[in-house]
Amino acid sequence: MSDRLAARRRAVASATAEAGATALLVTDPRNIAYLTGFRGSGGAVLVEDDGEAVLCTDSRYELQVVEQAPDVGHVISREYVAGVLGRRRGPADAPLAVEADAMTLSAATALRRVLAELGAADAPLVETSGVVESVRRAKDSDEIGLIERACRVVDDAWTHVLAHGVLATGRSEREVAADLEHAMRRAGSDGVAFETIVASGPNGAFPHHVPGDRLLAPGDLVVVDFGATVSGYASDCTRTVAFAGAADRLLDAYQVVSRAHRAGVSAVREGLACGELDGVSRGIISDAGFGEHFGHSLGHGVGLDVHEAPAVSTRSASTLSDGDVITIEPGIYLPGLGGIRIEDTVAVTGGSGRSLTTTSTALTVL
Amino acid sequence: MSDRLAARRRAVASATAEAGATALLVTDPRNIAYLTGFRGSGGAVLVEDDGEAVLCTDSRYELQVVEQAPDVGHVISREYVAGVLGRRRGPADAPLAVEADAMTLSAATALRRVLAELGAADAPLVETSGVVESVRRAKDSDEIGLIERACRVVDDAWTHVLAHGVLATGRSEREVAADLEHAMRRAGSDGVAFETIVASGPNGAFPHHVPGDRLLAPGDLVVVDFGATVSGYASDCTRTVAFAGAADRLLDAYQVVSRAHRAGVSAVREGLACGELDGVSRGIISDAGFGEHFGHSLGHGVGLDVHEAPAVSTRSASTLSDGDVITIEPGIYLPGLGGIRIEDTVAVTGGSGRSLTTTSTALTVL
Repeated sequence: MSDRLAARRRAVASATAEAGATALLVTDPRNIAYLTGFRGSGGAVLVEDDGEAVLCTDSRYELQVVEQAPDVGHVISREYVAGVLGRRRGPADAPLAVEADAMTLSAATALRRVLAELGAADAPLVETSGVVESVRRAKDSDEIGLIERACRVVDDAWTHVLAHGVLATGRSEREVAADLEHAMRRAGSDGVAFETIVASGPNGAFPHHVPGDRLLAPGDLVVVDFGATVSGYASDCTRTVAFAGAADRLLDAYQVVSRAHRAGVSAVREGLACGELDGVSRGIISDAGFGEHFGHSLGHGVGLDVHEAPAVSTRSASTLSDGDVITIEPGIYLPGLGGIRIEDTVAVTGGSGRSLTTTSTALTVL
Repeated sequence: MSDRLAARRRAVASATAEAGATALLVTDPRNIAYLTGFRGSGGAVLVEDDGEAVLCTDSRYELQVVEQAPDVGHVISREYVAGVLGRRRGPADAPLAVEADAMTLSAATALRRVLAELGAADAPLVETSGVVESVRRAKDSDEIGLIERACRVVDDAWTHVLAHGVLATGRSEREVAADLEHAMRRAGSDGVAFETIVASGPNGAFPHHVPGDRLLAPGDLVVVDFGATVSGYASDCTRTVAFAGAADRLLDAYQVVSRAHRAGVSAVREGLACGELDGVSRGIISDAGFGEHFGHSLGHGVGLDVHEAPAVSTRSASTLSDGDVITIEPGIYLPGLGGIRIEDTVAVTGGSGRSLTTTSTALTVL
């Protein structure tokens, strides 16, 4: 693991040099975890030009940092940025790269103050975007193993939910979400990867519906979108079930989404343009006459963040490569009537796609 | 409600004018919710100098925004900032206030681009901090009502947990956290307010322990820190229970924390300096010889964020006033042995304090 972390930091150091800086100040918590193994909630890391790194966190994590991040330097202080910059090896006024997507204007002002205290008030700050995130995109086998465990959690939870009558008419969306999250926790989740969606009946037409007090009713389709985390890594899965009596138009749409989903998952392979992959599923939905009712993109990368690179959308400029982990999640949303979405988390390994979420996607009528 | 939102926006407009700008660009999601009622996950708001406001969000929320935020202008676009600035009433190059604690460097760059497109490339940006947060500090009766509901959820969940053997030797911290979160969901929580802490035995010495696979054992003290959210508002509560056979030193420390907690809650009143309040509880712990084992502050404000103003710490410069909602959470942490923390969420109303979390804080031996 130590070797892998060092390789990650060297890749980051190299991208930092390309951006014109001699060190990168890392303040995004997930990037800190990725580069050092440390998973506390506060800290900063400085990655030097050879990949050596120093991590500053506060006294709450004094023991944890030694255990989780043994191969980087440690500073214990509440002043995270001052802590790491005080240990910078090169000249204090050399160009310093910062994470522009994570650093707030307030944090930038505080950084300027620290630099001034170090006699480097005029050090050039290089605003970078996605330096660590680009390295994070290609998952190694350990990472895919953790995502797979997070996927097994959602599989186990979904199996439990179907076997124990959690989805039943007369129960509220909120109750279903509670039971599903509980099942994920019991199956080994460290916590939800995102807010669980349970969208029943007409609510299913809203892709991001928040579970409420509506009671599941005969004839409903119910969209359930849920994910777990294991050691920081996320899974993402959607299943849609029907209660007897659902409208034919919804049942027809289900079969269209199901075909679009299968075709998308089957198409996944190294070298495929993400825009083209989006088109595989979107084409099936459009050809069936539902094109205007599939408004979101086909998928997104999954890792330490539940939404990360690559985007799988019409406009995506990315091409799939080994180590990508993405979702395939076509949907159809019919206002006033309901919705369908079917989603798996899929890894690109050995040149082809492998679904890490494995429960049945065939129509289940309860 | 509409009147209250308008009053909030007028207070913000007034603070914005004091900061030297004619409008505030609000990008913090909780501040957006506070000023408009809109609770979607993406958007931006522009508050003009008279408190009028325009809100931009994307098409996912087209219906929701009309329902939740009826009394502000709406723009539907994925370009949130361009959407609201395009509707600015005053000159495009007038000073514009931004939220420096919420806006990233990337977002600031994007904002500059939008301003340039509006022919206002040189518009002065005024970096503000805590403008909306300061207004948020004084809760109105509706807000206190929602926090009280979130507190009732944790009370109900805790009662359930004690009544149903959730805390039992041989069960893992993770299982306990799962069951407690499930109980909160069933009691009406929209989701956890923060990551639930279940810290058993020696793990209790870490104030921010993450629930793991350790099994609860005879003689353990178990620290359980948990919170719910209701309509966006948080609650925060900690209880510590003991299993028979706990070390005398831990049981002694429990009584000290209990006294410090009661004294702190009783001391809460309008006009009291927060530093002084911290001292009330801290003094009791110090006098009992445990001062070095209480390393964190006594409490913090609770509202849309589970940690907000005012800080209740040694160094706090705040003074309690009506409408404050704070936690009182003294603790003692004994390395290798265990920990104790007792926490209530307390509202300042009618000049004095009222605990909104109400379950017993007496030592429970299981």
